[in-house]
Amino acid sequence: MPYFDTASAAPLHPVARQALQASLDEGWADPARLYREGRRARLLLDAAREAAAEAVGCRPDELVFTPSGTHAVHTGVAGVLAGRRRAGSRLVVSAVEHSSVLHAAAAHAAAGGSVVEVAVDRLGAVSAAGYRAALAEGTALACLQSANHEVGTVQPVAEVAGVCAEAGVPLLVDAAQSLGWGPVEGGWSVLTASAHKWGGPPGVGLLAVRKGVRFAPQHPADERESGRSPGFANLPAIVAAAASLRAVRAGAEAEAARLRVLVDRIRRRVVRLMPDVEVVGDADRRLPHLVTFSCLYVDGESLLHELDRAGFSVSSGSSCTSSTLTPSHVLRAMGVLSEGNVRVSLPPGTTAEEVNGFLEVLPGAVAGVRERLGVSGPPAVPAEPVADSVELDALGLRCPQPVIELARAIGTVPVGGTVTVLSDDEVARLDIPAWCAMRGHAYVGESPRPAGTAYTVRRVR
Amino acid sequence: MPYFDTASAAPLHPVARQALQASLDEGWADPARLYREGRRARLLLDAAREAAAEAVGCRPDELVFTPSGTHAVHTGVAGVLAGRRRAGSRLVVSAVEHSSVLHAAAAHAAAGGSVVEVAVDRLGAVSAAGYRAALAEGTALACLQSANHEVGTVQPVAEVAGVCAEAGVPLLVDAAQSLGWGPVEGGWSVLTASAHKWGGPPGVGLLAVRKGVRFAPQHPADERESGRSPGFANLPAIVAAAASLRAVRAGAEAEAARLRVLVDRIRRRVVRLMPDVEVVGDADRRLPHLVTFSCLYVDGESLLHELDRAGFSVSSGSSCTSSTLTPSHVLRAMGVLSEGNVRVSLPPGTTAEEVNGFLEVLPGAVAGVRERLGVSGPPAVPAEPVADSVELDALGLRCPQPVIELARAIGTVPVGGTVTVLSDDEVARLDIPAWCAMRGHAYVGESPRPAGTAYTVRRVR
Repeated sequence: MPYFDTASAAPLHPVARQALQASLDEGWADPARLYREGRRARLLLDAAREAAAEAVGCRPDELVFTPSGTHAVHTGVAGVLAGRRRAGSRLVVSAVEHSSVLHAAAAHAAAGGSVVEVAVDRLGAVSAAGYRAALAEGTALACLQSANHEVGTVQPVAEVAGVCAEAGVPLLVDAAQSLGWGPVEGGWSVLTASAHKWGGPPGVGLLAVRKGVRFAPQHPADERESGRSPGFANLPAIVAAAASLRAVRAGAEAEAARLRVLVDRIRRRVVRLMPDVEVVGDADRRLPHLVTFSCLYVDGESLLHELDRAGFSVSSGSSCTSSTLTPSHVLRAMGVLSEGNVRVSLPPGTTAEEVNGFLEVLPGAVAGVRERLGVSGPPAVPAEPVADSVELDALGLRCPQPVIELARAIGTVPVGGTVTVLSDDEVARLDIPAWCAMRGHAYVGESPRPAGTAYTVRRVR
Repeated sequence: MPYFDTASAAPLHPVARQALQASLDEGWADPARLYREGRRARLLLDAAREAAAEAVGCRPDELVFTPSGTHAVHTGVAGVLAGRRRAGSRLVVSAVEHSSVLHAAAAHAAAGGSVVEVAVDRLGAVSAAGYRAALAEGTALACLQSANHEVGTVQPVAEVAGVCAEAGVPLLVDAAQSLGWGPVEGGWSVLTASAHKWGGPPGVGLLAVRKGVRFAPQHPADERESGRSPGFANLPAIVAAAASLRAVRAGAEAEAARLRVLVDRIRRRVVRLMPDVEVVGDADRRLPHLVTFSCLYVDGESLLHELDRAGFSVSSGSSCTSSTLTPSHVLRAMGVLSEGNVRVSLPPGTTAEEVNGFLEVLPGAVAGVRERLGVSGPPAVPAEPVADSVELDALGLRCPQPVIELARAIGTVPVGGTVTVLSDDEVARLDIPAWCAMRGHAYVGESPRPAGTAYTVRRVR
């Protein structure tokens, strides 16, 4: 049963399992104690730190283990912001950071700090120029992911690090999605990562802070992990994390080349196999194992269930698969379609047969969902337009219904005529313009109404 | 090789190991995902929460899993203090709490809050009256451990909870040392615990917050664990923690009775086997598996090394075994001797033979250390006192040397005469009065000097 959501969590790497089991026997004691069990635990901890530091590309004393990637991000952001309080209270982040970074930023803003978001292009990438413009006087910290977790786009970290260095601002790089594939290039100041993303166990994050970066931990004092990560060290998991990072890295180049071919195949095929599908993210500057596409007139949750029934586990940034009923902030920042969104992230070892199996199942799954929504085939177009402009009441309808109504109505106006959709679904703001771009119509704009918002589209062809 | 420091960390319980291995296969996926691996992980997480909640004695939706007991304490203290900000900013803690509580309190004080410490008696116990007196207007939270981690004294939690309820102040109980032995009695509001103390894996703490307690998490937002514990859930460890808690509880009563006998044996024997030894903590109201004693004229670090060489792993609250060269705050709060301090905490399954082996080795180890310090046998007493009062320059000498010098000098003054020890070792303030109490002399008091402090003792017999 192929599991294609390794960007959420990877199954445990065999080396991680082996190391975990061995260190359950050797590494359960308190490494701060003087007796033999404690000394043995200390040796294991030191060795794990050296191995992880080598993979990260830093000194062992610059690296601490945290309970998760989220803890690494929260601690790293708060620590630098506090350490550089005298430099200012401005925090610069990209609009497509992982939620742990954005939540840390929101906490900073709630505490009176200022947060500036750097926009991305339609492929999900920031630019060094965008960071340069954002790094005003009083910037304490800038954050940038090494690669995006939802669309796989690789960010220009080295260039942004250069811009940050010129401005004298430390750069925190969230390397959660990429560290298993290789070290982060460029002059980063702080780096965070998460072991369960590379096949290590849950319960381990990495936080590396370069010597010389002012850092003031914001949690209560604790002498462990250089005072930067409170709590009893989860040593068996730390040992397993370090061992599996080394193992994954050893095979990373070959595996990346292999998965890149499989992902290219998915990118090419999905748009040929089905109508009204958009692949999002950069085709070249991307993670080797990850591809994301969105399907018009499809309800993401239903599609995920169809694929799950067919044996494929994938993820989605659609609003209907989130508890908040809002689409992924990444897709929103990119300005691309969010409905029927599917993220495929292949674990190491994925075979061509598994990918082919997925491509065989996918069109039927999408067609099935569209059929149940009443959108099989192109919408019936009346012989003659019925009016120059039409207004649709889509209040109370949830994604993808407002867009389906729009697609049905566009043929009822002449070329040059307008369709206005009245919707109270937040996703319409993203998906109606995206639909226009995909179908070659012109998006006129939105205007508030007593109930909901009116989105107007001009028929072009 | 007997390991007698289970109060620091317990070796993994066989049930924990089994559950951990099983859930490495079943529980690595993200429990928030909709596909089968995610649903399976969710089921495991829900079942673990139910089992742990039953053992704690709360509703499943009142309990979250944290990455450690320390995280549970930090989050619990900060969350209630913030949630009850309008009630006031006063925090009441006992003087003998675990460092995680005291560090959280210090962070509160550093942020402008007020902290009141409730004193303990010579056995290490607080009183309900002590808490009643401390619960002034404006108290946001009171904290009390269920049992002390260094001397094993069980605290009157139910009485203190009653006093807190009368005052309308929530009580946070740190149950790290006792939860494996049984649920915490009484009307606590918040409870924290740590799995690796009961034989669960590291990486799991428990935080239970009763419905109705105002709670405002202070970390950045995160939707997991009811918003009270950020980061990806360490599910295999959580499953192992819950399973082992249930297993440990099933045998707790029988094991407690068995270990209580062994600890009673240690308590009785150490004072008979060796001169100048003081057992500290309550003989009856105590944890079943833990005993602590201090040995005059002994350097704690040397004694631990001797015992380690003989195959016994124990802990110590002596200053020379801490990185800060200060004695345990628990022993200081109790006003008992800290030099040559040894904590023995027996893991389940400890045999009488192992305890007998320890009691055979211990006197030789203590005598060996004393011999190297030149204190074998009672100090030589001159036939006639040499002066009415003597002042000793012990500046620069570290524990236990100042007390050894004092013991040597006391015979040089007549009954009624005084010996003054000039010392810059912080421990002297604790150990010189303790020595007086043990040897039947009168402690006159201390006075500051340009270098160090002068401690004066009157010879009584």
